[in-house]
Amino acid sequence: MNTLLLDSDDVDDYAQLGDVIDAVEQAFAAFERGDTQMPAKSYIDLPQYNGDFRSMPAYLETDDWDAAGLKWVNVHPDNPGDHDLPTVLGTMIYSDPETAFPKAIMDGTTLTMKRTGAAAAVATDYLAVDDASSLGLVGAGVQSYTQLEAISEIRSIEEVVVSDPDDARVDAFIDAYDDRFDVRAGSIAEAGHCDILSTVTPVKDPIVGPDDVGDRTHINAIGADAEGKHELADDLLQAATIVIDDHEQCTHSGEINVPYHKGTLTDDDIHAEIGEVVVGSKPGRTDETGVTVFDSTGLAIQDVAAAHVVYENARAADDGQPFDLVGVGDAN
Amino acid sequence: MNTLLLDSDDVDDYAQLGDVIDAVEQAFAAFERGDTQMPAKSYIDLPQYNGDFRSMPAYLETDDWDAAGLKWVNVHPDNPGDHDLPTVLGTMIYSDPETAFPKAIMDGTTLTMKRTGAAAAVATDYLAVDDASSLGLVGAGVQSYTQLEAISEIRSIEEVVVSDPDDARVDAFIDAYDDRFDVRAGSIAEAGHCDILSTVTPVKDPIVGPDDVGDRTHINAIGADAEGKHELADDLLQAATIVIDDHEQCTHSGEINVPYHKGTLTDDDIHAEIGEVVVGSKPGRTDETGVTVFDSTGLAIQDVAAAHVVYENARAADDGQPFDLVGVGDAN
Repeated sequence: MNTLLLDSDDVDDYAQLGDVIDAVEQAFAAFERGDTQMPAKSYIDLPQYNGDFRSMPAYLETDDWDAAGLKWVNVHPDNPGDHDLPTVLGTMIYSDPETAFPKAIMDGTTLTMKRTGAAAAVATDYLAVDDASSLGLVGAGVQSYTQLEAISEIRSIEEVVVSDPDDARVDAFIDAYDDRFDVRAGSIAEAGHCDILSTVTPVKDPIVGPDDVGDRTHINAIGADAEGKHELADDLLQAATIVIDDHEQCTHSGEINVPYHKGTLTDDDIHAEIGEVVVGSKPGRTDETGVTVFDSTGLAIQDVAAAHVVYENARAADDGQPFDLVGVGDAN
Repeated sequence: MNTLLLDSDDVDDYAQLGDVIDAVEQAFAAFERGDTQMPAKSYIDLPQYNGDFRSMPAYLETDDWDAAGLKWVNVHPDNPGDHDLPTVLGTMIYSDPETAFPKAIMDGTTLTMKRTGAAAAVATDYLAVDDASSLGLVGAGVQSYTQLEAISEIRSIEEVVVSDPDDARVDAFIDAYDDRFDVRAGSIAEAGHCDILSTVTPVKDPIVGPDDVGDRTHINAIGADAEGKHELADDLLQAATIVIDDHEQCTHSGEINVPYHKGTLTDDDIHAEIGEVVVGSKPGRTDETGVTVFDSTGLAIQDVAAAHVVYENARAADDGQPFDLVGVGDAN
């Protein structure tokens, strides 16, 4: 009985974004309905290596399928400079909930980018104006690519404005997409006046203020992933309709963590969790809604949902490398 | 840059018990010195499948090496009957602490048995009489094999008495070892009057009482791994010198969990954690010591220590299957 091994190319091939967006949307709905189990992330802090590990186990049940798994992931900011490795490396174990058999082991690095893009797409679908056709990106790192790929699945994006102080990154991004979109470099304010803005930077001092965005811009705040990080100015957040992915994670390490701990933002300023919007218990954008912000920290159920898609698509294509990890022979 | 895949046969080959016992002993010492990080196990309970998942991340640093990793493991008691699969299936990710690169992914099922045997061997080394030559086993399931294999590494075992109501299991055990040991079936009391006794059953009502053991028997209580399970009678425990692996785990789900919650046993009845005995801050067996009990719940640092051994031994033998999981090319 084999475990299917799926490398980063396989994950890239089989995490088809339309499918991942659907699965992540179902995961958010399951979370709201209480049909998930997601223990708090466990952290191992290694200051001697300027890094940490995070263990992210989860189970979720939708109307059509259930899935369990675990992502073991890290943040080691010195990796690119010192080791020619990405800051974030992930490994995903995808397990059969009924027996716990490890059905697949897959690269969790590419998976993380895909499921993060998918979460932004789900939020954008409920929170951006219906006729959104322009996307701004603040930050042109690896996450910016999956933001555009995923968001263009759910809105007819024509114009893309990318803002990053690193010209080489901007050029690389434009090269990657100028055959498919009207894509150009711009200021933060030019990016922010698009219909949709995704911010994907690791900054600790906000770089996007209220004047940098349009009256009805939807913002996906992706970058903040640790205490002390935030990309959006407090007064921008205060004026916006804020949707979060998870209260515990967002107040601990998401876009809102700094003003929340200062008391500048309170629970009264949070409109909804994304799951509430997906199931319809809280409204998404209405005619009266101005700026919206989705605070995305990334949930373990997103990883499990995305892994489900990768595994099923890879199996349907008869791809991946079978490996007899457990050595239990041919069982049911 | 490749991740080394090691299946159950590889783990069996390279978890050489002498090495694993040394590594687990070092892990216990590191735990006592505070040179470990071991977040509490995260549980996902799936009553609809009569099973659960556990996430066990850990980091440890010894004088000579450090190591990080995570075991994703489960308990699904219906697996053998319904799916021809073991109750417990594990997958271990062994990571470089400096970069988080997944150096190896290995079968965690065999690894669990090896590190559990090794823990019993470490405790036995400090708690059994020096000239111990007989080992009793209550329960002849898979764990009994590694108990004998590991304990015979640290004491010159000649005589083995195995007690199990399932005759087929007893016969299989005897067949496996009668060329190396004087091994025979016996009652619980016959097994318990050996110099060393290991109990490896999942019972909820104790089956070993004070009269079932010798005056100076050392007992490894391995079976209890969940609330409500215990193998040894309260009055046996009360009279014994009790050494535990970890206070939180043992009082929650170890051999002592039931009497501890009843108040029959208190912290005053616990002699030491095994790490204290290993580093010498609490004594092991002395001339005055009677019956000793090691309450083994199994720590995540044992898995990481055992994985370290498997990885290093497999690398030295140039074995295992390299797999480019992460797709980052040849980095440092």
